[in-house]
Amino acid sequence: MRRILLEVAYDGTDYVGWQVQPNGVSIESVLNRELSKFFKEEIKVIGASRTDSGVHAHSAMCVFDTHARMRADKVSYALNAFLPKDIVIQKSMEVDPSFHPRYEQSEKTYVYRILNRRMRDPMLRRNTYFYCRDLDVQRMQEAAQKLLGEHDFISFASPHFTAKTTVRTLYECRVDRSGDLIEITVRGNGFLYNMVRIIAGTLIEVGNGRFNPADMDRILEAKDREAAGPTAPAHGLTLERTKYLNLSQKSVDTAE
Amino acid sequence: MRRILLEVAYDGTDYVGWQVQPNGVSIESVLNRELSKFFKEEIKVIGASRTDSGVHAHSAMCVFDTHARMRADKVSYALNAFLPKDIVIQKSMEVDPSFHPRYEQSEKTYVYRILNRRMRDPMLRRNTYFYCRDLDVQRMQEAAQKLLGEHDFISFASPHFTAKTTVRTLYECRVDRSGDLIEITVRGNGFLYNMVRIIAGTLIEVGNGRFNPADMDRILEAKDREAAGPTAPAHGLTLERTKYLNLSQKSVDTAE
Repeated sequence: MRRILLEVAYDGTDYVGWQVQPNGVSIESVLNRELSKFFKEEIKVIGASRTDSGVHAHSAMCVFDTHARMRADKVSYALNAFLPKDIVIQKSMEVDPSFHPRYEQSEKTYVYRILNRRMRDPMLRRNTYFYCRDLDVQRMQEAAQKLLGEHDFISFASPHFTAKTTVRTLYECRVDRSGDLIEITVRGNGFLYNMVRIIAGTLIEVGNGRFNPADMDRILEAKDREAAGPTAPAHGLTLERTKYLNLSQKSVDTAE
Repeated sequence: MRRILLEVAYDGTDYVGWQVQPNGVSIESVLNRELSKFFKEEIKVIGASRTDSGVHAHSAMCVFDTHARMRADKVSYALNAFLPKDIVIQKSMEVDPSFHPRYEQSEKTYVYRILNRRMRDPMLRRNTYFYCRDLDVQRMQEAAQKLLGEHDFISFASPHFTAKTTVRTLYECRVDRSGDLIEITVRGNGFLYNMVRIIAGTLIEVGNGRFNPADMDRILEAKDREAAGPTAPAHGLTLERTKYLNLSQKSVDTAE
């Protein structure tokens, strides 16, 4: 058996999220179906991140095991011919059979996009959150800086989390504006459930003046979800990059 | 009767184009239907540009006449509440009853977007043309420059055109790359049928090495559609801006 790692990009608009659900089509179920058909064996992918319904990805990682002898780097091209247009494999490579996408050390980068103008833009409706009141990006940036480094992020987690510890480290947390588009970029070694969306929702409250940048310290110290702002809508969020820190790619032509 | 000018943005993916067609839903027909329902009188918009099926717009202009006394600048907000998500009025204002969106002097800016990388991006599939072979943007830019100014653009027009003259003036014609995204920007006083898509298709042939930048002169001189490159696919094209040169806005509260 060989283990293949896939980097998957998807427009999450029309899916119930990554994970198989009874109430709709998930990214995971489409991959399982198409991989099983393609390789003519039952395949179940193991994903690194279970994005919520409506969340997008440019770099969602998963692995699957197969007996097939196809060159690993060709799997992406072959599979893309059968996948729906809103799911595209960006890369495929063979990894060690012990490689587990969820437990390997990784850095993930999420970007939360806000369209901040008077009128909606139909071209951006799928992957940006429309917010028509003025947002002060400098205040948001000042607040974002306070989340850098190691903190207990329990105030920024939905109460449904199952993690053992709520301490996480953010290497990057910043807010940039380019024209009408505001991007909140958050990079860290791990994230609690809904953490980026609650950070985004809280930074929006700073941007509109309801919170002050200094409130971020108070919110962290409160260790209480109620202290933070609302959870920003799912469709503004994209998992932009997953970087494995100790990934050694097997030679792509191992099987030949 | 008052005449109201609308600036309309739309994602053209799911429409047969601007103009009413027997074979599907057009932008024009949706506007006619919703405006008529809203104002409770039969309304027919007159559009400035008839974009093809799949083409998008951030600034498609049209006018309609109404007996309604609503403040003209409020029409956009009111109407957006009833329009589908892929059509959004950006602006509404009262204009002189003699204002005709097609015959007034205007400058239009089109942008043709190309995603130039190995793998497709599902988030950009609706409004960028995916092209996986390397494109040399410097060559494309050199070629684009040759179209600046006044020329007979008949080589860059689909033979179905109905225009009296095929001479047009381009004020801007340039190619920019930002990461994997290439944008061809064309601004002019008028365009022949499929002109921007044929310019884009020809510039792509320069970028991939099949044509040389100097071939642009030859193509213009040939006055023959066969001399130019193929018509690039519709979904890469967006009408970005329409600017009327002699537009005098009526006071927004005329009717009050």
